[in-house]
Amino acid sequence: MKALVYHGPGKKAWEDVPPPQIRCPTDAIVRIDTTTICGTDLHILKGDVPAVTPGRVLGHEGVGVVTEVGSAVTSFRVGDNVLISCIKSCGRCKFCKQSLQAHCLGGEGAAGIGWVFGHLIDGTQAEFVRVPYADTSLYKVTDGVTNQQAVMLSDILPTGFEIGVQYGQTKPGDVVAVIGSGPIGLSVMMTAALYGAAKIIALDLDMNRIEQAHKFGATDAVHAADADWKAKVMALTDGFGVDVAVEAVGVPSTFEMATQIVRPGGHVANVGVHGKPVPLRLQDLWIQNITISMGLVNTNTTPMLLKLVAEGKLDVDKFASHHFKLGDMLAAYETFGRAAETKALKVIIER
Amino acid sequence: MKALVYHGPGKKAWEDVPPPQIRCPTDAIVRIDTTTICGTDLHILKGDVPAVTPGRVLGHEGVGVVTEVGSAVTSFRVGDNVLISCIKSCGRCKFCKQSLQAHCLGGEGAAGIGWVFGHLIDGTQAEFVRVPYADTSLYKVTDGVTNQQAVMLSDILPTGFEIGVQYGQTKPGDVVAVIGSGPIGLSVMMTAALYGAAKIIALDLDMNRIEQAHKFGATDAVHAADADWKAKVMALTDGFGVDVAVEAVGVPSTFEMATQIVRPGGHVANVGVHGKPVPLRLQDLWIQNITISMGLVNTNTTPMLLKLVAEGKLDVDKFASHHFKLGDMLAAYETFGRAAETKALKVIIER
Amino acid sequence: MKALVYHGPGKKAWEDVPPPQIRCPTDAIVRIDTTTICGTDLHILKGDVPAVTPGRVLGHEGVGVVTEVGSAVTSFRVGDNVLISCIKSCGRCKFCKQSLQAHCLGGEGAAGIGWVFGHLIDGTQAEFVRVPYADTSLYKVTDGVTNQQAVMLSDILPTGFEIGVQYGQTKPGDVVAVIGSGPIGLSVMMTAALYGAAKIIALDLDMNRIEQAHKFGATDAVHAADADWKAKVMALTDGFGVDVAVEAVGVPSTFEMATQIVRPGGHVANVGVHGKPVPLRLQDLWIQNITISMGLVNTNTTPMLLKLVAEGKLDVDKFASHHFKLGDMLAAYETFGRAAETKALKVIIER
Amino acid sequence: MKALVYHGPGKKAWEDVPPPQIRCPTDAIVRIDTTTICGTDLHILKGDVPAVTPGRVLGHEGVGVVTEVGSAVTSFRVGDNVLISCIKSCGRCKFCKQSLQAHCLGGEGAAGIGWVFGHLIDGTQAEFVRVPYADTSLYKVTDGVTNQQAVMLSDILPTGFEIGVQYGQTKPGDVVAVIGSGPIGLSVMMTAALYGAAKIIALDLDMNRIEQAHKFGATDAVHAADADWKAKVMALTDGFGVDVAVEAVGVPSTFEMATQIVRPGGHVANVGVHGKPVPLRLQDLWIQNITISMGLVNTNTTPMLLKLVAEGKLDVDKFASHHFKLGDMLAAYETFGRAAETKALKVIIER
Repeated sequence: MKALVYHGPGKKAWEDVPPPQIRCPTDAIVRIDTTTICGTDLHILKGDVPAVTPGRVLGHEGVGVVTEVGSAVTSFRVGDNVLISCIKSCGRCKFCKQSLQAHCLGGEGAAGIGWVFGHLIDGTQAEFVRVPYADTSLYKVTDGVTNQQAVMLSDILPTGFEIGVQYGQTKPGDVVAVIGSGPIGLSVMMTAALYGAAKIIALDLDMNRIEQAHKFGATDAVHAADADWKAKVMALTDGFGVDVAVEAVGVPSTFEMATQIVRPGGHVANVGVHGKPVPLRLQDLWIQNITISMGLVNTNTTPMLLKLVAEGKLDVDKFASHHFKLGDMLAAYETFGRAAETKALKVIIER
Repeated sequence: MKALVYHGPGKKAWEDVPPPQIRCPTDAIVRIDTTTICGTDLHILKGDVPAVTPGRVLGHEGVGVVTEVGSAVTSFRVGDNVLISCIKSCGRCKFCKQSLQAHCLGGEGAAGIGWVFGHLIDGTQAEFVRVPYADTSLYKVTDGVTNQQAVMLSDILPTGFEIGVQYGQTKPGDVVAVIGSGPIGLSVMMTAALYGAAKIIALDLDMNRIEQAHKFGATDAVHAADADWKAKVMALTDGFGVDVAVEAVGVPSTFEMATQIVRPGGHVANVGVHGKPVPLRLQDLWIQNITISMGLVNTNTTPMLLKLVAEGKLDVDKFASHHFKLGDMLAAYETFGRAAETKALKVIIER
Repeated sequence: MKALVYHGPGKKAWEDVPPPQIRCPTDAIVRIDTTTICGTDLHILKGDVPAVTPGRVLGHEGVGVVTEVGSAVTSFRVGDNVLISCIKSCGRCKFCKQSLQAHCLGGEGAAGIGWVFGHLIDGTQAEFVRVPYADTSLYKVTDGVTNQQAVMLSDILPTGFEIGVQYGQTKPGDVVAVIGSGPIGLSVMMTAALYGAAKIIALDLDMNRIEQAHKFGATDAVHAADADWKAKVMALTDGFGVDVAVEAVGVPSTFEMATQIVRPGGHVANVGVHGKPVPLRLQDLWIQNITISMGLVNTNTTPMLLKLVAEGKLDVDKFASHHFKLGDMLAAYETFGRAAETKALKVIIER
Repeated sequence: MKALVYHGPGKKAWEDVPPPQIRCPTDAIVRIDTTTICGTDLHILKGDVPAVTPGRVLGHEGVGVVTEVGSAVTSFRVGDNVLISCIKSCGRCKFCKQSLQAHCLGGEGAAGIGWVFGHLIDGTQAEFVRVPYADTSLYKVTDGVTNQQAVMLSDILPTGFEIGVQYGQTKPGDVVAVIGSGPIGLSVMMTAALYGAAKIIALDLDMNRIEQAHKFGATDAVHAADADWKAKVMALTDGFGVDVAVEAVGVPSTFEMATQIVRPGGHVANVGVHGKPVPLRLQDLWIQNITISMGLVNTNTTPMLLKLVAEGKLDVDKFASHHFKLGDMLAAYETFGRAAETKALKVIIER
């Protein structure tokens, strides 16, 4: 079959590889009908994620049809249309039982990490993929939900909702600031309404992206490059700061921004993937009664988000900015890699 | 009346000052029968808290008898034996209504800060003290509770319980590590049992203090100076780390220790008062699904803690290491200031 | 001044009474600019609430301008435009401190009950009203919020939200059934979106009211008189029942309906005021892992709801079905009393 | 092998039956080393549970050694010493994923019910038992925990803790009343300390059992036959009632008692198994802001309780009142069936 294979920093190819096979009775094989590219894939290609070794098929988002199941799989049958969660979950380890699937101890790729596709085992940017622990890592695509909609729930929607909105303890009436308007930041904005946010403030350096944020639920926007950005945010609150400040970039300066605008008793929810330490101003913050949260998505809200998509309560099609065929995988990467120019959000890649 | 007056860095005196008077209808005057000294008072005397200006009577912990009430006070009468909370609460501002009394906006001393005694208004190391918002800042001392017991609830017990145990989201079966075995750290250990902690690990550089920790509920102790301190802590867990890591010192190295031993999904509860930034290893921690909390005590658990003391469930007398008369205030400071030698925990100062 | 006075079962008059005066330093006098009538007022007039004695001025909802404040009132000044909460809160008793203002122990009318206006003390269907504990029972009407909007927050919106939506533990993705489409039931429907309900099913015997429910957020409607009403509700779920079943009528049969449609692990939230016991089928329900909640509103979400109205997130004007002048109070009662014919929801009565 | 077989109402035998065999790849076979008898078994023998058909091996509590595992079982090996949970959990259905294992949809016995052993499939009062979904229904017995201790965690400890203490929302400082001092009521008392209860009041008709309650954590006892039982309970509170009232009997009169002593804002936790409806005084209770909870145990706290037993924090050996050999099963039933005379709590039956 064809797959997008990583060949070391800066090198990738759409090439023939052996098709995946069932290895454990809990495995399933899925034919990929729809996949997409994540910013993390670009990081891998730069060589930033050393755990990914040459020869690895990339991709951790996908929707498709089950073509084979292991002997212990009871929830899915050949022919089922399924959403592949970016997190594998064994359903039986102590972390899965505590709904902390991000740290699943099930021994696929590596114990203690739920994210394995396109990382520690072959991923979804391929014609077929092997899915371990199928019973607890796949979700049937509900009638009335399209593949394009479903693929947004492999990673970005649950990540924005769980790590941004829920970890940020968003509650009705809250003012939520989201720093960074990429797909993940926009996912936070779209799902903050699920807990009744009164205001959603988008902050970004790129004015184009901020404008776009309004389509995803932002009620207000502040240009992060303005000298008085902080005063502008504060003016949108009662003067004490925002209830929830979500960091969705992954660099020290944006994390610092979040800690500057959070009110006493408020929450900083870090969603960004960071590459270096950030200085934490504990001398000012210790007295502020704030929490700082962070984490990898557990995807345990995926069935709920699917239900909301089916009910027409989440218009996730807005994320789909470009469409490609599987065979045009390299062109899709090209477009996604130049997002600032192409204004790509999620590139939909279909069989 | 006599009071302990701050006269600038390094200078204090037990001297005559005018007795306090009712200023607002919500005030009460309390005759101090029992007070004590907090580590914060020593910081003030070093000049570390510039908001404290010369002439200020120090002290924010105390128990005594009401001698006068303002016209709007309805919950207390002259003669009531009361516990003075270290946090004044107006009971009517948005923060008080949200049980965030630490940030009470009531205009005494300064809006937005609940801690005013011995800081922004005259404090409790005196023969009498004026208590603003008496209805919501005082608590009747329950029958069967002594003044010595009650004074532990002015600050240290609620601080340890709220900011350590509750903000740390301690739950039954948890392994809790407490870094620092001073009065606040010991308060965390004593109250962690209220949420059913399975193990309480005391970490400190001072072996004497660690030994003492066992009397306050620690089930295990690790010498923080040991090269393999981290391995020793991990060996007391299932290998993944502690559920709750409480920082009760206030320096970067102990905060860093807390982040090294917390398990995926666990909580770092900062109780220490910090004077400088700490580096936060977000490059490692972003994926760990942890929370970091911090804050000033709200003292909204004080009535509950009083009830537990009355029921004999919290043996707070253990904190009382030395006893003085009010007139011996300077000797009390001397003993408390050399705690490493005198092994002072809380010095009880009585009328 | 003029006021609507209760003169025993079936008797009322709009007549002259002495204007209210400040009695306690914590009181305020408010000139009523907007008030309304509640179904409870009709119950009182039938003689169903014996605690209401002849001579009482009725009404517990109102908005107006402060004309006088007691000496201890610090949050409000003469001239402030304020919303009067149907619940008085002293802000200092154990129940108020636990955010259980419905059971406020402050001694006005009766200790242990927050609802006093038009019940145990004179109410808001008058030209002026005395408001006890003004600092903690009034809310400034935010700029941009009209009196008509604000008066919906005296009782019905917080009641629907707190006792229906919050006590029902509504969460994103839930299916919520609301039995009864009167003003309170409609308030539940309008505010269920604040916790991201996926579906809101209106049930009622009156098809007109059900139709109306769609304007207030209902996504589906079931005629409660249909023989297969239960099957119709179940068909709108995954077959296991609704997550939250809200009873908003107050009779045994509707309570029983709620217990029949709730799923395992779900919640029955009773909002209705009941006059007799209901049989609880514990022989079937004990194994269902459900909760049943009930209660009088605390109104501690009022400031939050005001914020959402100001942000345009809650279109509460929809409740205003008829308008009257204060002097036409009896006509307003007449219209509201025949709601089935007049289709009255809330009658707005203005100065 | 030998097993205790139900032969219709009033009839049972310890007789030869075919040994169990692996049917699904997720099954395990366990050799029973320790089992016990539950009050529910007596109900079954009376014919009260018609779902139990003649020929069924009874028993849902047990500890033993794994003798065979299906091909999909990854968490256990032959030779592991395991605790059998009374609730089977497939780990993959919507209810299991929501930690509502009591309603597990996994198709063993019947979908939608977690309790299958000795009910819908053969149980643990036998030499061997087949355990479906072994990965998610068994727990390794921790080193240092005896079989006798572990068997208390098959059912009674998690039931008392989850359905009594947790559903009752017990929190530090609470006054908890437990109506009924059988093994389940005593389990509630023993585990209420895990959330810091200040007082635990035992109510029972049998004075002997009440005396015994003190050994299990009760701080106070009230004889339920006393005319002034309610006044006695109220006198143990602040006059407003208990925070948590646990019903652990299962008849209307004890449920009614619970609703009479619960304070405003408090919780009634029903643990008893009921056979008929109970009248609910909604005319009095609707205004009380209480919750009423009920349910079958999920056993998701079992690993946590095991940890506390291993740490010596829960002295569950106290429940073991009598000891028998497997071959003396009928004698064990005889002793347990006359508990009022024999003072049997849990009869330990060992290989």
